[in-house]
Amino acid sequence: MSKLPGVGPKSAQRLAFFLLGMNEEDALGLAKSIVDARRRLRRCSICGNYTDDEICALCADARRDKGLICVVEQARDIAAMERAGCFDGLYHVLGGAISPLDGVGPEKLQLHSLYARLDTGAVREVVLATNPTVEGEATALYLAKKIKPMGIEVSRIAHGLPVGGDLEYADEATLSLALLGRKTL
Amino acid sequence: MSKLPGVGPKSAQRLAFFLLGMNEEDALGLAKSIVDARRRLRRCSICGNYTDDEICALCADARRDKGLICVVEQARDIAAMERAGCFDGLYHVLGGAISPLDGVGPEKLQLHSLYARLDTGAVREVVLATNPTVEGEATALYLAKKIKPMGIEVSRIAHGLPVGGDLEYADEATLSLALLGRKTL
Repeated sequence: MSKLPGVGPKSAQRLAFFLLGMNEEDALGLAKSIVDARRRLRRCSICGNYTDDEICALCADARRDKGLICVVEQARDIAAMERAGCFDGLYHVLGGAISPLDGVGPEKLQLHSLYARLDTGAVREVVLATNPTVEGEATALYLAKKIKPMGIEVSRIAHGLPVGGDLEYADEATLSLALLGRKTL
Repeated sequence: MSKLPGVGPKSAQRLAFFLLGMNEEDALGLAKSIVDARRRLRRCSICGNYTDDEICALCADARRDKGLICVVEQARDIAAMERAGCFDGLYHVLGGAISPLDGVGPEKLQLHSLYARLDTGAVREVVLATNPTVEGEATALYLAKKIKPMGIEVSRIAHGLPVGGDLEYADEATLSLALLGRKTL
């Protein structure tokens, strides 16, 4: 249990005792759901999102803008973007970010499938939505360099102050980028 | 003591006992510093920053770009911007943000002194760095409407993901603005 994210030894013990205290039917039901989910869910063959079909619901949705691809590090980032409801294009999951210190080079990311999608000529713009971390920035720069020569517009999500924040509590790097990225009104 | 920001009843008691336990000299020294600071510090007659002189060190600095004014809500925001070290223009402290619910209208902000500075014709651009809150945005919009007709460029600091953040944990509003404000690379 303590291998679960956000679960320390104490919470793990609490979870374990809760599971032991469940009635047998519920406990087996939970176990079955886990097995089922693991077995049924796989990666979308187009974008890498989780799906129980060959192609995920987003890629299969004819109403979404197929000329716009948002590149994210993980499938869970798609969930975050969809919650925000601000994007109507398609996604592409890299499966991580370039991190030489962790031994993750470009060859470990889902890039071939991305390039293949771009080669079709249907894509107008690629939005790089990797995380605003050192690794995410490095990955965005790497991808921009690779994709721009294909004649496709490449953009990066904005860095700046989060909504509802306070200038006073913003870190120096964010404040610098917020100022550099200021927009004429 | 509990009136101090970030100090609850327990911390207040702790501070009070600490003060009682200080040797007399240190305690009187602290008290004197508080009185001195209150007496000596005043508002810069140009920008509204705290200063012990008629004009603050920033306004008096000949090396700073006098064509660029960054408008902030509070003097403490200047400290944050200076820590980031990303701005070499001058500042203007509004003393708050427009908030009709709290009875704060534009007439309660230091706007006359701002307009007077802009009327000199020396200012090329005004950067609106009010907080990314509802009040801060309303104030920025109000100021943009007032300043643009003067023929001065008006810009707003960028909204987006803070540096080192994670897409997964970003709130919807921030994510939407980060996507809307994406920049072509």
